[in-house]
Formats: sequence, structure tokens, C-alpha cells
Amino acid sequence: MKISNLVIETTENKELRETLQYNMDQKTKPLGSLGQMERIAIQLGLIQQSTTVELIKPTMLTVAADHEIIEEGFASAPKEVTWQQVLNFLNGGGAIGAFCTKVGMKLKVADAGVDYDFEPHPDLYRVKVRRGTRNFLHEPAMREEECMQAIENGRTIVRDIAATGCNVIGFGEMGIGNTSPASALLSVFTKTDIASCVGMGAGISDGALSLKCEVLKKAVAFHGISSCPLTNLCRFGGLEIATIAGGMLQAASLRMTILVDGFITSSAFMVAFEVNPLVKEYAIFAHSSMEPGHAKMLEYLGAEPVLNLDLRLGEGSGAALVYPVVEVCVAMLNHMTSFAETKVFNVTDARQSGEQ
Amino acid sequence: MKISNLVIETTENKELRETLQYNMDQKTKPLGSLGQMERIAIQLGLIQQSTTVELIKPTMLTVAADHEIIEEGFASAPKEVTWQQVLNFLNGGGAIGAFCTKVGMKLKVADAGVDYDFEPHPDLYRVKVRRGTRNFLHEPAMREEECMQAIENGRTIVRDIAATGCNVIGFGEMGIGNTSPASALLSVFTKTDIASCVGMGAGISDGALSLKCEVLKKAVAFHGISSCPLTNLCRFGGLEIATIAGGMLQAASLRMTILVDGFITSSAFMVAFEVNPLVKEYAIFAHSSMEPGHAKMLEYLGAEPVLNLDLRLGEGSGAALVYPVVEVCVAMLNHMTSFAETKVFNVTDARQSGEQ
Repeated sequence: MKISNLVIETTENKELRETLQYNMDQKTKPLGSLGQMERIAIQLGLIQQSTTVELIKPTMLTVAADHEIIEEGFASAPKEVTWQQVLNFLNGGGAIGAFCTKVGMKLKVADAGVDYDFEPHPDLYRVKVRRGTRNFLHEPAMREEECMQAIENGRTIVRDIAATGCNVIGFGEMGIGNTSPASALLSVFTKTDIASCVGMGAGISDGALSLKCEVLKKAVAFHGISSCPLTNLCRFGGLEIATIAGGMLQAASLRMTILVDGFITSSAFMVAFEVNPLVKEYAIFAHSSMEPGHAKMLEYLGAEPVLNLDLRLGEGSGAALVYPVVEVCVAMLNHMTSFAETKVFNVTDARQSGEQ
Repeated sequence: MKISNLVIETTENKELRETLQYNMDQKTKPLGSLGQMERIAIQLGLIQQSTTVELIKPTMLTVAADHEIIEEGFASAPKEVTWQQVLNFLNGGGAIGAFCTKVGMKLKVADAGVDYDFEPHPDLYRVKVRRGTRNFLHEPAMREEECMQAIENGRTIVRDIAATGCNVIGFGEMGIGNTSPASALLSVFTKTDIASCVGMGAGISDGALSLKCEVLKKAVAFHGISSCPLTNLCRFGGLEIATIAGGMLQAASLRMTILVDGFITSSAFMVAFEVNPLVKEYAIFAHSSMEPGHAKMLEYLGAEPVLNLDLRLGEGSGAALVYPVVEVCVAMLNHMTSFAETKVFNVTDARQSGEQ
């Protein structure tokens, strides 16, 4: 399986990186003392191919879908919560509604495969492929054409958002049961035993957890592992996961900065990364979730999350929360004073010229 | 040694805590899924003794001083950088200037003991006790009356800031050489070998690091460890550390929320904590610094830092960076929708009433 017409350019530019690093080192602070903030600022400069950075029309895309795997009986909530939360988000409610309002991000919601008929709404993309993925204990979650459609829908949405001028996009999700596909994808991509990829999701009992583990183990054994990431996505994924993966790849191809939320959103990122690892150059990882598989995922991706808040909500909540921190990184890059602009003694320069 | 007229009330209020927890659990999310954000929101409610929280006139107080211990020859920069940075900050420069502007905090700077004569400036508190602390390898860093004066100065400044209406205050510091007192205080309060309390500070060589370690070891052996926290502060501390410790205690006594920055600011917090552990109920810990002793300090304090950015700059930079995250915690507490306000199915209530 293959996504067509997708070109992602590397952000790498040796000369610009050196200039950005030089500018960073000329700021009135000890070398490297702003740690990961400096890495993020340089990454943003490379994404925008500029020594100054502008974050324009920050947007959050929260994608929702249902999952028939919950028929197996270990979900923490009935699937109606998926559509109910979509309506809640569209009314500015839920964590993601409150957070986006506070941090100044525009919230867009997509129905990638919810078992509900939504009325039109200006902030809702109605791109339902099917009323939920199939139960992947018994058959692939998606047919190839469904999966490709969901990916293309994500790409179309991101093109639409980019057309508003947006250059920084967060991704989040809503879907009762969607830690199951995320855990299965983690297990398959990292070839790790399912037991260490499974967690309590939104909150389930120990009994439900061991049932979840058993079901996912059987499902992985039943389908096997493909060398094609999109085939694995068809087998184990979710429609929201496919739509987000497509959206992330498109965002990278449009040189947008991508804010990655928690466990499920990161599983979509894994898919995108397996398709084209250059997507990582455009991504900032918001936080390390309480869901135990997330740390494993971040490690596999070589990602360095910013926040340490034991979140396990999803929706894009962590990605919204990291946005103001990214804004401060930009302020640092654009506005923090340099030694040349002040009378502060530059220890590094002095050392190099033998003054010290 | 004793600080007079200092009363800190506990924020604990069982009924209010239960109400806050109930309100949190009624929000449209799985129980506990916002992790540390929920803990912070409840803490803020308890501090303000209210089910809704308001952050008013957020202010950063960056306190500067010099340290004669740098005569021993292991500092990363000449002491002139202390006063130069104070002027830089007052001009809105440096990391703390740029960060405060971005996050909407008012920056105030205090000269607690800088070896320089500053002109008056509306944002500078001129409360110099001495032109730097003494070299504590040979004698106590401060006389008792100097230390008490620095503490009282911190209290007076915080009273002045509170009088503007401010109810949330960040603390930061600037002082070439001040990782040394912070490391010594950490070693003394936690009774840990100095070697594991010492780090590279703003950036020193391995040779300088082992010299620093040796000097601090000698200093601790020379003075010994007192059971009185303020006596330890006199022996090993800094004037900025004493001023910040006094400021923090005063802030807690005025029921202000305290944002604690990195290693040196946390060493001041340790002093305050040893004087009155209730100060911790008012404190939010911004980040875990790259300076290795900081993690040890946070562990000793039972603190849970929010950001994971490998910062090692000080100035209050991490405390400024955490402020917008705290703002989102407040938005969550005040504005996030509850189940009653929406049509989202409440799993927990249903379980309790046997519906599920």
C-alpha cells in the first residue's frame, strides 16, 4: 500500500542550523543553558527555514471514531461517549475546548468514523468512512480502500486548515476503545510483547485489563505482522488514527509544525513515521502519558516530550498545553537579547580570544 | 535564629478539598485523567479557599547577589556578569525579560547583595545588605544580622508586591557562583555527600568541577551542620537565597501561589521549608533542572516538577515558562464543562447507580 503524491522535504540545512546555533549562543546566557528550549527553537527555525519564527493561526485538529473491538467487553465507557464528546467539543466544552480557548488555538473536530449522524457545523469536518472500524479480533479493522480514504481525508483537512494561513497544528483524538488499536500498533511496530504495550486506558479494572491484553494478543497472532506500515494500520488501526497519520504527513509536506499529543495520537505518528521518517523533523512531542506504552513509543521514536503531568486524557489536551511553551521558545529565538545588544560580558567569546 | 511575626496557615480544608475533587470528577473526562493538572488545580483552590481560582497580577521576582566563594577560582564567569545581567533584565532583556513579556508576568528585580551601585529604577528593589557574601570556605557567608536583614528584605518586597493585588509570584535568581551555596545547603539539609550535590553550574570544566567539590567539602567540614536552618543559611547561603527564602515565607503567609524555579531558587525554598514546612502547600515546582542536585532536592521536598526541558539557566526562566501551564489548570478548574452541563454520559455515576 502506498500514499501517492506525498513529498516531504528534510528541514536540514547545515548553514541555517549553524546560524541558528550561533544566534542562540550569542544570547545573554551560558551556552546551552536553555536545554530543550534551544533544540525546539532551532527545530522551528529549520522548519520555517528562517532565523526568526512566526506561529500563525495555531489550530488543533481532534479526530473522532468508533471501534468495534469494544464488543469484546473491556472498554471503560459505552461508545455513545464518542459522539457525545464530539458535540461537547464543538460547543467549546471538554478539556480540549477549554484548553484551546485559553491558549488561543482554533479547535477543529473531524468525524473520521463515529457511529452517529452529525448535523453540519462550521468547525466539524464530516469525513466519516464507516461507522467505526471492524472488530480486529476477527478481521482487519479496515479494508485497504477505507484506510486509504481515511488517510486522504486527513490530508484534505490539513490542506484546508493550511489554506487559512495556519502553520502550526496540533493533533488529538476521541474514540472509546482506541487505546486498543494504539497498543496493537505499538506492539507490531516495535515487535514488543503486547503485555508491555497495554494499559488502563481511560480507567478499567484489572480484570478488564487482562482481558484486553488477551484479546490484543490473539488479534496480533491472528493477523501477523506485515512489513508494510499501512497494512498493519488496516489490520489493527482506527479511522481516527489513519486520518491523523494522513494529516501529519500532509502537514509535514506543507512544512507546518506538528504538535503531537499522547498515546493514541503518537500511535498515528508512528504510522506516519514508518511511511516517511522525515515527518519527525516537523514534530514536537507534548508530553509523556500515564499510559505505560507511551514512554515506549516515545523511546522508539527518539522523541523528547516537554511536559511531565501524568495526563491520560487525549483529545489533544497535552498538545494544547504545550503550545504556550512553544510560544515562549519562539519569543526566546526572536526577542531574547544578544551579547552584542547589551553590556553583558560574553564568557565564551572571551575564552576563545584568550581574554579570560 | 528565628523569624518573627510569621504566621503561615495551612491551606488544608477537608470539605473544600472534597468539593474541589467532586467538581473535578464531574468534568467531562475519565476520573483522574488530567493527572498533575488536577492536583495543581485543587492546590490552587485550597490556596485561594475557593472553588474557582483567579490569578491576579502575576509577578516574577528575580533576586541578585554576589559570592566571594568565587575567589576559589571555579566560577564559569566573572562576577561583573551579575550586575550586567541585572541591568539587562531591567531593560527587558535576558531570558527572564523575554519570557515574562511573553507570558504576561511583571518582572521585578532585587539587588540583595550585588557588588555594584545601581541607579534607582522603578522595577528594581535596592535592598543590598553587603556587596556579596563572604567566602564561606573561611568564615560564615553572612553574619546573623545580615542574614536576618536579607530575609526581612524579601518579606518587605513581597508585601509590597502583594499590595499591588498580585496573588501569584515566581521567584528566580542571578548571581555568579551561586550554585556553590545551593549545593552546600543541599548537602547540609539532606546530609548527603557533597559530591552528589555538585554540578557544572553555568558550565565549568571537569577540573573546575573537582576543585568546586573539594572546596565545598572543606567548607562543610569546617562549619559543620547546625540543626537550625537559618544558621546553616548564614554559614553557606547567599544574600539572594536568604531574600528569596524570606520572600517565599511571606508569600505563603499572604496566601499567594509561589512558582519555584530551578536549583538555586529551590535551595532557598529548602530553607523556607525547614523554617516552616507549610510553605510547600503554596508552591508549584516548575521544572527539574539539568543541575544534578536539583532532582535530589525535589525528591527531598516531595515536589513534582511540571516541565522536562533540561534547563540550567535560573533567573526564574522555568518559573515563567510554567506560568501559562498553570493558567490552563485554572481554565480547566473554572471553565471546563461538567457532565451536568452536557449530554455526555457519566460512566462513574452510572457505575455507582448500577446503570452500567
